[in-house]
Amino acid sequence: MSEYKAPLNNMSFVLHDMFQIEQFLTDLAHPAELDEELCNAIIEEAGRLCSQVLAPVNRSGDEQGCVLTDKGVVTPDGFKEAYHQFVEGGWPAFNASPEYGGQGMPKTLHVLLDEMLHASNSSFCLYTSLTSGAVHALEHHASEAMKATWLPPLIEGRWTGTMCLTESHAGTDLGLIKTRATKNDDDSYLINGTKIFITGGEHDLGENIIHLVLARLPDAPKGVKGISMFIVPRFLLDSSGNPAEANSVSCGALEHKMGIKASATCVMNFDDATGYLVGEKNQGLKYMFSMMNNERLSIGIQGIGLADSSLQTAADYARERLQSRAPVASTGGPDPIVEQPDVRRMLLWMRSHIEAARMSAVWLGMQVDKSELTDDNEQKAQASKMVAFLTPVAKAFYTDMGSMSCNLGMQVLGGHGYIREWGQEQHVRDVRIAQIYEGTNGIQAMDLIGRKLLMDKGEGFQIFAKWYSDAIRKAENTGKLSLANRDNFFSTLRESQATLNTTVEWLLEQCQQRPALAGSVATDLLELIGLCWLAGMWCLALNSLERTKYLSEQQRQQKTVLAEFFINKVLIKHQTLKASIMAGEQSIMALDDELM
Amino acid sequence: MSEYKAPLNNMSFVLHDMFQIEQFLTDLAHPAELDEELCNAIIEEAGRLCSQVLAPVNRSGDEQGCVLTDKGVVTPDGFKEAYHQFVEGGWPAFNASPEYGGQGMPKTLHVLLDEMLHASNSSFCLYTSLTSGAVHALEHHASEAMKATWLPPLIEGRWTGTMCLTESHAGTDLGLIKTRATKNDDDSYLINGTKIFITGGEHDLGENIIHLVLARLPDAPKGVKGISMFIVPRFLLDSSGNPAEANSVSCGALEHKMGIKASATCVMNFDDATGYLVGEKNQGLKYMFSMMNNERLSIGIQGIGLADSSLQTAADYARERLQSRAPVASTGGPDPIVEQPDVRRMLLWMRSHIEAARMSAVWLGMQVDKSELTDDNEQKAQASKMVAFLTPVAKAFYTDMGSMSCNLGMQVLGGHGYIREWGQEQHVRDVRIAQIYEGTNGIQAMDLIGRKLLMDKGEGFQIFAKWYSDAIRKAENTGKLSLANRDNFFSTLRESQATLNTTVEWLLEQCQQRPALAGSVATDLLELIGLCWLAGMWCLALNSLERTKYLSEQQRQQKTVLAEFFINKVLIKHQTLKASIMAGEQSIMALDDELM
Repeated sequence: MSEYKAPLNNMSFVLHDMFQIEQFLTDLAHPAELDEELCNAIIEEAGRLCSQVLAPVNRSGDEQGCVLTDKGVVTPDGFKEAYHQFVEGGWPAFNASPEYGGQGMPKTLHVLLDEMLHASNSSFCLYTSLTSGAVHALEHHASEAMKATWLPPLIEGRWTGTMCLTESHAGTDLGLIKTRATKNDDDSYLINGTKIFITGGEHDLGENIIHLVLARLPDAPKGVKGISMFIVPRFLLDSSGNPAEANSVSCGALEHKMGIKASATCVMNFDDATGYLVGEKNQGLKYMFSMMNNERLSIGIQGIGLADSSLQTAADYARERLQSRAPVASTGGPDPIVEQPDVRRMLLWMRSHIEAARMSAVWLGMQVDKSELTDDNEQKAQASKMVAFLTPVAKAFYTDMGSMSCNLGMQVLGGHGYIREWGQEQHVRDVRIAQIYEGTNGIQAMDLIGRKLLMDKGEGFQIFAKWYSDAIRKAENTGKLSLANRDNFFSTLRESQATLNTTVEWLLEQCQQRPALAGSVATDLLELIGLCWLAGMWCLALNSLERTKYLSEQQRQQKTVLAEFFINKVLIKHQTLKASIMAGEQSIMALDDELM
Repeated sequence: MSEYKAPLNNMSFVLHDMFQIEQFLTDLAHPAELDEELCNAIIEEAGRLCSQVLAPVNRSGDEQGCVLTDKGVVTPDGFKEAYHQFVEGGWPAFNASPEYGGQGMPKTLHVLLDEMLHASNSSFCLYTSLTSGAVHALEHHASEAMKATWLPPLIEGRWTGTMCLTESHAGTDLGLIKTRATKNDDDSYLINGTKIFITGGEHDLGENIIHLVLARLPDAPKGVKGISMFIVPRFLLDSSGNPAEANSVSCGALEHKMGIKASATCVMNFDDATGYLVGEKNQGLKYMFSMMNNERLSIGIQGIGLADSSLQTAADYARERLQSRAPVASTGGPDPIVEQPDVRRMLLWMRSHIEAARMSAVWLGMQVDKSELTDDNEQKAQASKMVAFLTPVAKAFYTDMGSMSCNLGMQVLGGHGYIREWGQEQHVRDVRIAQIYEGTNGIQAMDLIGRKLLMDKGEGFQIFAKWYSDAIRKAENTGKLSLANRDNFFSTLRESQATLNTTVEWLLEQCQQRPALAGSVATDLLELIGLCWLAGMWCLALNSLERTKYLSEQQRQQKTVLAEFFINKVLIKHQTLKASIMAGEQSIMALDDELM
């Protein structure tokens, strides 16, 4: 198994050559005051943690899994030590508010930290990612007193957090949840119910676990408007704020899953557990959704990270494995299989997606930072629209391409990919959940076409479409591009742009009268937008080759070829997606349920 | 978890309504003398075995796996009993030659047996499938004396067989194998070497295991021309032909795999083991390849079977699971998720592929039977060409669509698909190997474009292209089709036909001067041919609706809608595949190996 190596050079290229991040943060007067050198030092340090501390316990964690014992859930060997180092390094505080001990780092950098964490050990990353989610929710919606109590230990990493949403009969449709909250005489509530699929619901990494639980008050309106959010700690706090008496929260069982086996996915029972209302009653779902963009982007990035891990192993293997003759410049054979065109096709598919996805994640991180910090109201509004519009694309497109990539990375190894020792099959199993949780990719597609396109009347889309057109133009205006077939390259880009615009225009018009159309074509539309987004990133990458400090001449050629592969072999799918969208809902809706 | 139900009605539709199999077999004077009723009785009985005996030990087999003990490899609980019933029912003899105790059933039916076996329990099926392969090889290449000794117990199922090809450094490239054979003073040989990934290499199901081992004689030419095939039994036979003294063959380890965990995949050590030469020396690879079509088709069918199993669970779940409101005719919600267009899209993708793949597998089985039995030399040649041309397509296209289907089937269940209890994640893991073994799908694509298209100078392709055109014409000439948009439907079909013809013509011309072109576009070409093949099957299905005995009015509508979905939402990819093929090898071959 190859060791995970953080793609630092490539990350610096994206941050500085492509997006001139130092200037960007200075313009925003970002409080973290980062310069180029410091950005690089941070990702380098994160890379070291991931390669040297987290990656080494990734496969053993999968083999061993979590175990539910009399004393609670025990994580695999080495996880406690790794978590200790994670906390020592101050990583839990990375993106949190400085007011409560956080480092307040920009999202632009956080996406790269997330990528490396997921690449090296997704199961581990989930414990910390859910804590970030809880911190985020409390920062935005809890009272000052509540924040002062709960945030500092979460941000230090002494405690961890969860989000308790799903119940056995309520997944996508949270309006159906049954967990009940009743008020005690003091400010607290009694929580009763059972939640499933709770990531990090119980484990041995920290001193306390802070559950954010969605539940209904007795007088709550039906459905999604009657859901409130509660803090339910595993251990109640004593008068000095330290974990003391056990709360009546327990892990009823661990789920047995396809992958992410070192992540404790729990059935959680709340039996007259003590909880505290966060913010106002009946606003719970709104609070959860307000942090959804954050979580969905993070899960999208799981797709990028695991894909990169799989690519590293596959590329190393392909260079070392000798089989058969190369079709060009054979030594007489056996030659390395990396010289076989079909193997190259798989590696290039992976790399051209992964690198462009990384660029787009950083770019989306910039939009998040801009939407929070800029003084310019128009820019703020535009950045917010882009975050809303592209977050479901990031979540679904990154994880679909991540799953495809990990499967290709396994395929490159042939039979050796299917057995456990090379780690490739674990990537396939670990990445697969990312297409499902935090809202299935089908739900992302519905969110995109429903809320973010139709309800928005195409406003967010217009900003995106203009960005895409500008990106193509920037590439067109770049001097000295060594493209093999320049005309073809740009005509494909312009055709995809035309497809995008005509398709969306048609949808804005047609969906009004055709209630099943949006759902029937949602996944196609999301893929079309994802393809154009990544194609636009390759245009920006080409544009930055003129000024690159980080890339060698050889690497500049590599980016050019990756861009060509992506446009000539991948983006061309826009034609088919258009045809599928235009074919509409007819064959999809025609059959009775029992014939489906 | 849904119980597996053999799709008997659909199978009868394919056999009788579509392909009038009784007449077909009568015309061939097939010795099995099957009529319609008997065909149906056979698949019904096979379906019973699969549902009631094999499916019940599928998930427990996965959980338990095989274990290597002091006494050899132990299969999971229930496997011995299931195998006993399999033997009692005479199933090992199904397709074998009557001369040695076989039932000599046509391949046309065998493909359906294979589908049901793989659907219900792929791990179990592999023990029997490898035995069939060994029987097939011996029937064709062993001496009469050898056949008399080894075939009857294999065909009875008392003994099982393996194929020992792969070594750690020699997978795709069997020319590199190092296992040695040296002649003893009698007719036997001493075999020395280590083989890996040996399916059924060691287990407790039968009384003896007959290994067919590829090895080199001391004077053998280098590479693939110096490989001979040997029988190496686990137990040597006594003078009455019964297993007696242990041979020095041992299982060194079991591979730990992503799936098919109840199938014993072994590292096999041959230490001065006694073996017997099959046929002539240095012809081993040719012998192996002569049975490759058979094995590859069977593995392709693993994709169909597991996909159907996954579909059955997904469709049942979607009809039962209540979440959110349906966009059309909602009861007020929550409604069954089968009414969500995006869920329907996934189910229809699966069903429209699975049913057409089944039709095509039966059709390919007919070509196999015809190539073996017809007296008409031209028909024999044409059928043989079709078998050669389409077998790599069947293997790769069925398993790619099988993997995609199982992933969609899992996605329909959301989080419930990712946990083990529903069985959907097992299907994903079990089907994944089928894209790898018996030659990776990339190797199938190379075989198709290299041997079956270019070396054949397009002759096999011409037969296929004519078949496709005829199939479209038959559908066009069918009266009373209730297509929603007839013009669009047939124009898409005709466009795909034009794409197919122009693309292949271009390749026949270009590949000569461009050594890396074939490998660069092989996978695209295979997918294009697979899409057209299945589209042609839908045309034949539509054509048979006029005369169907097996389908209700509702089911006739179902087939029409499935055909529309396949043509309007799937076949349209032909455009993109053409563009990708025409983009050629440039971006694929441009980079140095270290930049890949």
